[in-house]
Amino acid sequence: MADQYVATTESAGLPAVPSLRWEEPPEGPVLVLLDQRRLPAEEVELWCTDVPALVDAIHTLAVRGAPLLGIAGAYGVALAAARGFQVDDAADLLAHARPTAVNLGHGVRRAQRAYQAAVKAGADAGRAAAATLAEARALHREDAEDSARMAAHGLALLEELLPGGGYRLLTHCNTGALVSGGDGTALAVAGAAHGVGQLRRLWVDETRPLLQGARLTAYEAARTGMAYTLLTDNAAGSLFAAGEVDAVLIGADRIAADGSVANKVGSYPLAVLARYHHVPFIVVAPRTTVDLGTPDGAGIEVEQRPGHEVTEFAVVPAAGAQPGTGVPVAPLGTQAYNPAFDVTPPELVTAIVTESGVVSPVTRAGLAELCAKSRTGLGGISG
Amino acid sequence: MADQYVATTESAGLPAVPSLRWEEPPEGPVLVLLDQRRLPAEEVELWCTDVPALVDAIHTLAVRGAPLLGIAGAYGVALAAARGFQVDDAADLLAHARPTAVNLGHGVRRAQRAYQAAVKAGADAGRAAAATLAEARALHREDAEDSARMAAHGLALLEELLPGGGYRLLTHCNTGALVSGGDGTALAVAGAAHGVGQLRRLWVDETRPLLQGARLTAYEAARTGMAYTLLTDNAAGSLFAAGEVDAVLIGADRIAADGSVANKVGSYPLAVLARYHHVPFIVVAPRTTVDLGTPDGAGIEVEQRPGHEVTEFAVVPAAGAQPGTGVPVAPLGTQAYNPAFDVTPPELVTAIVTESGVVSPVTRAGLAELCAKSRTGLGGISG
Repeated sequence: MADQYVATTESAGLPAVPSLRWEEPPEGPVLVLLDQRRLPAEEVELWCTDVPALVDAIHTLAVRGAPLLGIAGAYGVALAAARGFQVDDAADLLAHARPTAVNLGHGVRRAQRAYQAAVKAGADAGRAAAATLAEARALHREDAEDSARMAAHGLALLEELLPGGGYRLLTHCNTGALVSGGDGTALAVAGAAHGVGQLRRLWVDETRPLLQGARLTAYEAARTGMAYTLLTDNAAGSLFAAGEVDAVLIGADRIAADGSVANKVGSYPLAVLARYHHVPFIVVAPRTTVDLGTPDGAGIEVEQRPGHEVTEFAVVPAAGAQPGTGVPVAPLGTQAYNPAFDVTPPELVTAIVTESGVVSPVTRAGLAELCAKSRTGLGGISG
Repeated sequence: MADQYVATTESAGLPAVPSLRWEEPPEGPVLVLLDQRRLPAEEVELWCTDVPALVDAIHTLAVRGAPLLGIAGAYGVALAAARGFQVDDAADLLAHARPTAVNLGHGVRRAQRAYQAAVKAGADAGRAAAATLAEARALHREDAEDSARMAAHGLALLEELLPGGGYRLLTHCNTGALVSGGDGTALAVAGAAHGVGQLRRLWVDETRPLLQGARLTAYEAARTGMAYTLLTDNAAGSLFAAGEVDAVLIGADRIAADGSVANKVGSYPLAVLARYHHVPFIVVAPRTTVDLGTPDGAGIEVEQRPGHEVTEFAVVPAAGAQPGTGVPVAPLGTQAYNPAFDVTPPELVTAIVTESGVVSPVTRAGLAELCAKSRTGLGGISG
């Protein structure tokens, strides 16, 4: 707030840039991604004509965010089917492209099952590919619908927890339209609050090392005209101490059966700060993020990413996946600890908001009940 | 730890680069600073021939760190006296160059008092300047001695708190030889542990936004052969959760009479994490950092720095003081919250280590007693 800048709203109301779409030019089907590494400087599209290209885009975070990874994975299987590649191999490659986000595997396996069912039912290659694509499109559409439901449930929760309105919400990483077929998860809730005129301030953690908050959340907040302020992750403590945070809203990459939440590294320190300051800590994620097969936080595999993401600043983020391409910010040879995620235990989570409703307090039984409801209720996307 | 890098010890044992020295070439006296903005890439000297140049170096963090600011301030007054500038004006300019670090004002006023006493005693300009320089040199020497005492007291405290040895210490910002006439404050304690073979791991917070941990602490750790690992500030939570941190060691820029500690932003979240995980949180700072004139944390003025430090990455840190000279990492017009410091309340501080001894638990009475001792004991540098 020391700077002369004011939050711009000039770009408010611009049409959303689709984070992902399926195209069928004469040369054959292609999955078109918005290259998130180039934002906010440039809106560049990445055309994936085969699965290795998509896997590379996933590895290098050109496409990222738990729900969107599921959608991208499903389209990736559809791409393999449509292009005549070996579908099961492609599915395996895609499902293991990143280890922590459970949605990726879900999307991949769902499209793969649609393909296998079509083949089993006697479909030829073309019809099996069409069935796979239809399943990917269905997942994409459902994700958009789920975003809207999460936003509504989350807003209702805020109204209940913070009856005064005028919310000052702190968020971490990027959980908006860029990670979703719709408006996203945690950021969709902030967007809903903005929509009803109750968002007083969105505090945006820059989210080191890859700056998804600065690059992506600030970009989305600016486009939608939210009052937002960027901060280094370590400045959040000062905001809590000053009483400037009414609630923390984050997404999730995997939620274990006991309610332990794996999310972008830096989420757990926020949870501890929120508890210390008696501020609600709210996780917003689709039911697919709940992994009943993982009993607790200790069972969640946390992806360790290359140290050069910390020791170098990638001036051209698209090139940042390779060491030696950035500006060194530490002595040569420096070893870095660079976990992509951390795990927040359920006792620090005030509520988990899903498209099927809110679990609060967060308990194993509450999550199991939610997942049972999802199987019989909205269906199709079981935990 | 995901990377292929190993901590280098190749540069261990290199002679220390003096962070500051006084030179008297034929052209007139000059204060030579190691430009800390250029590290670790380059060891570049900055020659200050007048006070405005030094003030600029302080503003832009070419010279930084609480104890070193005090020394630089004292030499700055000596420079004004030696070069025939108006000494009282120069002292005022220097004392207010940065608001939070109390040592800066201490050093400036001490040199100014020496000048005034000499003038009052009838000294001519040359002899008054010599007396001022002698006082700056005395402060410089005392700071080196104090570093050694803090290191010894801190090491004894670690031995008492952690009888198992083999310490894994987490530190934030830069508190070593670069900020001191000697080995520094918190990093001097880690160095003492390293010297007796008991430093198992130094965890180095990168310290956004200006990356003093990555740029400077890693540089010092590499030069002295410590086993160190760099991390983003928000990854510290994962280390605490994994039980990988035995103690936190930080410096201080100002300590209020009640024991509230102002230090680099990000210190307070570490204190909250340390408390949550029952890990000692140790502050190492010279007695001059204790400001009995500030009753509590609320009375500490926290410097708000320009938002472009957060919204842009300064590829050439020396140019980073000007907005628009870095690579934007957020949309144009993004507003940033960028406090340079935060304040940790005394109840979260396990101990304050000074050159006169250790205050633990941290209480108003304990600090007052320490400062009284310093007035009658080592003398010269009162609280």
